[in-house]
Amino acid sequence: MNDYSVLGKRLPRVDGIPKVTGDGKYAADLSQPGMLWGKMLRSTHSHAKILNIDTSRAERLPGVKAVITGKDLGGFTYGFMPITRDETPLCPDKVRFLGEEIAAVAAVDEDTAEEAAGLIKVEYQPLPAVYDPLEALKPGAPQIHEHAAGNISLHYKMNFGDVEQGFKESDYICEDHFRTSRVYHAMLEPHAIIAKWESNGDLTVWASKQSPYFMYRIFAAAFNLPQNRVRIIQPYIGAGYGAKNDAFPLDFAACVLSKKTGKPVKIVYSQKEMLTSSRRRMSFIIDMKTGVKKDGTIMARDCRVIGNGGAYTLIGPITMYLAGALMTLPYKIRNLRYDGIRAYTNIPASSAHRGHGLAHTHFAGELQLDMIAEELGIDPVEIRLRNAVEPNYITPNGLKVGSCALKECIEKVSTAANWKETYHKKKSNGRIARGIGISATTYLSGMRIRGHAACAATIKVHEDGTVSLLTGATDAGQGSDTVLAMIAAEVLGVHLEDINVSLLDTQTTPADPGTYSSRVTTCAGPAAKLAAEDARKQLAEVAAELLGTGAEDVGFKDGKVFMISNPRKEMPFKRLTRITVGHGLGKVILGRGYYGLNIEVPDFETGLGNISPCYAFGAQISEVEVDTETGKVDYKHTTVAHDCGFALNPMLVESQVEGQISAAQGQTMYEDFLVDEKTGRTINVAHNDYKMPRAADTPNMHLIQVPTIDPEGPYGAKEASEAIMVSTYPSIVSAIYNATGAWIKELIVTPEKVIKAIKEKPGEKT
Amino acid sequence: MNDYSVLGKRLPRVDGIPKVTGDGKYAADLSQPGMLWGKMLRSTHSHAKILNIDTSRAERLPGVKAVITGKDLGGFTYGFMPITRDETPLCPDKVRFLGEEIAAVAAVDEDTAEEAAGLIKVEYQPLPAVYDPLEALKPGAPQIHEHAAGNISLHYKMNFGDVEQGFKESDYICEDHFRTSRVYHAMLEPHAIIAKWESNGDLTVWASKQSPYFMYRIFAAAFNLPQNRVRIIQPYIGAGYGAKNDAFPLDFAACVLSKKTGKPVKIVYSQKEMLTSSRRRMSFIIDMKTGVKKDGTIMARDCRVIGNGGAYTLIGPITMYLAGALMTLPYKIRNLRYDGIRAYTNIPASSAHRGHGLAHTHFAGELQLDMIAEELGIDPVEIRLRNAVEPNYITPNGLKVGSCALKECIEKVSTAANWKETYHKKKSNGRIARGIGISATTYLSGMRIRGHAACAATIKVHEDGTVSLLTGATDAGQGSDTVLAMIAAEVLGVHLEDINVSLLDTQTTPADPGTYSSRVTTCAGPAAKLAAEDARKQLAEVAAELLGTGAEDVGFKDGKVFMISNPRKEMPFKRLTRITVGHGLGKVILGRGYYGLNIEVPDFETGLGNISPCYAFGAQISEVEVDTETGKVDYKHTTVAHDCGFALNPMLVESQVEGQISAAQGQTMYEDFLVDEKTGRTINVAHNDYKMPRAADTPNMHLIQVPTIDPEGPYGAKEASEAIMVSTYPSIVSAIYNATGAWIKELIVTPEKVIKAIKEKPGEKT
Repeated sequence: MNDYSVLGKRLPRVDGIPKVTGDGKYAADLSQPGMLWGKMLRSTHSHAKILNIDTSRAERLPGVKAVITGKDLGGFTYGFMPITRDETPLCPDKVRFLGEEIAAVAAVDEDTAEEAAGLIKVEYQPLPAVYDPLEALKPGAPQIHEHAAGNISLHYKMNFGDVEQGFKESDYICEDHFRTSRVYHAMLEPHAIIAKWESNGDLTVWASKQSPYFMYRIFAAAFNLPQNRVRIIQPYIGAGYGAKNDAFPLDFAACVLSKKTGKPVKIVYSQKEMLTSSRRRMSFIIDMKTGVKKDGTIMARDCRVIGNGGAYTLIGPITMYLAGALMTLPYKIRNLRYDGIRAYTNIPASSAHRGHGLAHTHFAGELQLDMIAEELGIDPVEIRLRNAVEPNYITPNGLKVGSCALKECIEKVSTAANWKETYHKKKSNGRIARGIGISATTYLSGMRIRGHAACAATIKVHEDGTVSLLTGATDAGQGSDTVLAMIAAEVLGVHLEDINVSLLDTQTTPADPGTYSSRVTTCAGPAAKLAAEDARKQLAEVAAELLGTGAEDVGFKDGKVFMISNPRKEMPFKRLTRITVGHGLGKVILGRGYYGLNIEVPDFETGLGNISPCYAFGAQISEVEVDTETGKVDYKHTTVAHDCGFALNPMLVESQVEGQISAAQGQTMYEDFLVDEKTGRTINVAHNDYKMPRAADTPNMHLIQVPTIDPEGPYGAKEASEAIMVSTYPSIVSAIYNATGAWIKELIVTPEKVIKAIKEKPGEKT
Repeated sequence: MNDYSVLGKRLPRVDGIPKVTGDGKYAADLSQPGMLWGKMLRSTHSHAKILNIDTSRAERLPGVKAVITGKDLGGFTYGFMPITRDETPLCPDKVRFLGEEIAAVAAVDEDTAEEAAGLIKVEYQPLPAVYDPLEALKPGAPQIHEHAAGNISLHYKMNFGDVEQGFKESDYICEDHFRTSRVYHAMLEPHAIIAKWESNGDLTVWASKQSPYFMYRIFAAAFNLPQNRVRIIQPYIGAGYGAKNDAFPLDFAACVLSKKTGKPVKIVYSQKEMLTSSRRRMSFIIDMKTGVKKDGTIMARDCRVIGNGGAYTLIGPITMYLAGALMTLPYKIRNLRYDGIRAYTNIPASSAHRGHGLAHTHFAGELQLDMIAEELGIDPVEIRLRNAVEPNYITPNGLKVGSCALKECIEKVSTAANWKETYHKKKSNGRIARGIGISATTYLSGMRIRGHAACAATIKVHEDGTVSLLTGATDAGQGSDTVLAMIAAEVLGVHLEDINVSLLDTQTTPADPGTYSSRVTTCAGPAAKLAAEDARKQLAEVAAELLGTGAEDVGFKDGKVFMISNPRKEMPFKRLTRITVGHGLGKVILGRGYYGLNIEVPDFETGLGNISPCYAFGAQISEVEVDTETGKVDYKHTTVAHDCGFALNPMLVESQVEGQISAAQGQTMYEDFLVDEKTGRTINVAHNDYKMPRAADTPNMHLIQVPTIDPEGPYGAKEASEAIMVSTYPSIVSAIYNATGAWIKELIVTPEKVIKAIKEKPGEKT
């Protein structure tokens, strides 16, 4: 047992009240004096040359202040890596998906801006388009980018161990074909920005971004501005899930329109714009071959994936890396081959999304493991325990596992769900069949990419003993502000309510890479800890004098400062700060800390290298009821055991896990973009068509926290909950198989597919 | 000669462009989503008991969201020191001046709020009022505060050396009676605030304040809020001149109205409200007795002052202290007695104003010195040189002078203005008489008051080599942001345009006492210097490795980093920061510095102790033309020699000196509140009646900078320009005497007074 006062407690979120009452403002809520509204003009073709753009009618409309096109951005291109810079903020020459942004208008109000956008006349020369990645990769397919013959956006090949030898040594080899679906991040808050470009060149931006420092760097580059003149001020963020890392066309447009008009310009995408044109999770086509020994030991895996990348590459290198390189966890797979192609198609581009990359290949791997287990007569729990990685394990591609309670998670979850009995018991009661499925899982805890890997924090101690924490990390809704504040409170021995966390402002809060790959706790956490320790050290020097001891003998706990050697000699923390800051000359207590991820940048193409300081693990059991007449699946119950290291706030872990289960449920059972194959048009462009799970649809959830103390994470903490995104898909599909005897290898699981699978299952008479 | 690259240069202000273009926003320009407008109800009596306040009609007016009175502030009182807390934000029981704030209204717009304020019915029981401080001090005068019999707000007695002995040893003793005027700060921007009180208790305020940390402390105390929940965000400030230190009734009202309504509330005082009811410079009645030797050596001074304090005490202790204790400069006065009474009267309260305190008694002293010089047949320049203090001088009350070029200033100014010839030459040409007058001067460079004396700064170095400076100091218009940025640029060896200064935000910028008593350069300057040095040290460690030398051998200058021992080995600063921050693990370069004024808190009542780290000096000659028929004075020319230590930016010194001269000219010749003696009503309540000098009225100005390197100030810098406020008054009045032979000992110098003085001068036939 630890003796923490704050950490490990179920404390409410520091941003809970303003978010619930509406006091907390999001980007779309804000306004600026003299502000104009911007609107985008979008392509009406999926693939077409732009012959001419006539903005004259729009410019003449009363109330219109400026109209811009791609020309106003001077040929700026962007992308995650120099070699993948294939996107322009406003399309100057050729549109590559239906809804792509071509021009933007600023006007006195939103309606006028929208009307004006409709007055811009674009002459197109339509080109044949391709939406399916397999079609796109065929010879003779319409070429989407000049630089990319064959429409290959990326092609990564990984090879760890000796795969051929592994298959030779296998007793049984299984080969299957899988598909995952194309889904929307579905955050409540759409993209929104206000940009204010001042006459001295200072650019101030209020925008909904989960990684504001991405935008700060991109804007500095795009507009040739010094970084200290690009000020991104972060309002509350209504979630991102990987969709709000990049800068988007509206962001560039708002800046350029503001520069042109000399006024602040606001642009907010409508839900329809979000659903038709914004980034999506990539869908994968997966061919997987796995070889095992009779006892279920995995000997080799060969995996070929084709991802539907959409029109641009974006953060694709990371997706394709994660889908391959992370497959060496959570099972001991010593021989792995991965061939990953990201294809360009004429649909909106694909981006990061929770469970990024791994969710797809792990879905295939888990289903295949169940098939193998059945073939070999091994219990699904048992085959997982046999292959599960253990603490201090190094994968063949160099991922370094520190703490790992995977086996305990599998055991606990199967005990809690009464696996043995439930798995084998009679499945149906008339038309309703019951089933249970298990999945093990893993995810990384932060990622090292090239450059700017360090996080920093500063701590300002007020006279009255309250504390302000400045971090460059963004709480996009996941609760990281609460966790960072708890760390600072623990170090300083004060209560959580004594800490406030300032919203990010690139001019005043220290730089931070951003909120992605579950990195905030493990990377920004240590920075907050160091900053608080630095402030505590300064206070300890004063306290030592007052208490008559050495600084190393001063303890801080529960709002008190005391002699460690004689704890009865104590004083209130607030008294110490009053004396230190308020009396005499008045010290200024400013703590400072920074933390660079002490790991090497891995090679994305080969998959070699350790990408994360630590890895989370877990196991999940899903229970379903299937109506065998209608194919309707009712997700009844799920049991999750999660090793997220030391849970700094178990309540936050719980709520995050619940959110992941609900999101993954949607992506397993309901959510998929329907695209008209002739035009590339997205058919389900509102949430009455693009369906998501509601409260009544979600299963009962039971979370068992299986703590470990990881040597790398702050206080032993690791990633929490993203791993559960990864295990939900396969555990539901396995449960459907357990209920019906039918495998559904292509997401999403619609009632039609369930009925079809039941009818087509081996030995079934149709 | 120094070899600075940035310091000492005539560089334009960092905030120049946004202020000139209007991009820079002031508090009144801002708005918040859902914002309401507030208006104050003001007393219609100068002195009256409040019997009842009926807000019901106001509350019923459509659009009104809340009405508050003093009751809503729970009896909170405030003031500069615990013993002087005699003011309430909204008057609950008794009004003490006409226009005092009694209630406030929040409504959907400004007009509705104003209409509603007019619907509040206050029942008064009028009391006899007193406006003149001499009347107020008489037995039987109406008593304004229950605690203060005799209407004495403060009574300070100082006694340095042996005054009686000094007079005994004097050859000549002079006694005179003087009065100074009651003036308005006349900043362009009125008081303005938006307050947003969130449901979780966080209070965010955008307000026009020169010392936002005053407000942060007062609000924390008034509303029982933790300091880290009181967030004061500073917009651009349209000057303060001492008027914007405190929190005012509108500030409290906006907060309470916001709390009550759950909406942001904005209140902006009109110019009429500012002129009728806001703080004013205190007017003084001065009886001064000075004894000298035949050679002009000052032997003793006895000074009794009565200040018209108005209804409340506020910052009065400092005014009364400065008026007395600073009289021991700029002349060697070893025996000084000071008896200062601050009287309560039924007019708006008196506050700080440039040349705070000293301006009044120095005015009297300078005039008297001229009278003595004439009596003894000594040239005014000569008598000043004879008594002038010199470097490393300690006054009898403990003020410690470091650098001092007072004698050089007197000499240079008299040479430049051709004093000898001009002073003695024929004065009149028909009805126009010409005259010349001299004054020496001094002022303090920051002040030590109890608590929170330290300034701090942080420096954030961006990847591209640009730099953000965070300071808690406020640039209220004086140009301190430019000076602090220059200091950071000099230390880091970058260009001024590479630095930006963040506007103050009590949650993110480090705490700072505020902008008063010319303290920012001398107190916040060293903090900025230390922070930049701290960042430089971190960068030097990386540079040392790259250059192959030790960190102590790394120089920073002109955008380059080089080996001091071999300057040809160099690299661009921007390359160093790219490598340091952007490459490898990415360091986070955050510099931190704080500086506590290393002097003791003086005793305000006795005047003992050194209040400031250093003292500025100067001398000024004014030349006037007087129309002896109309009494009109034309201020033709002034020559100023100023020892402000090392002038960090001579152009800023110049513009500040010019501003002081213009302001002091107005306060000598044009500006004075006219108060109806029956009702206490201010008569001149708009700028067509309350006249100030326009560009065409100002004299030609010639500034000679006489640099010293002060041992205490940063790079040798001291206070700049406030001393010249102090010398302008007497130099104009002495010039009028030189022109006409008539002394005007009561400010302001109106044409009527000039004619009267000419007619009444000794030997003149009327």
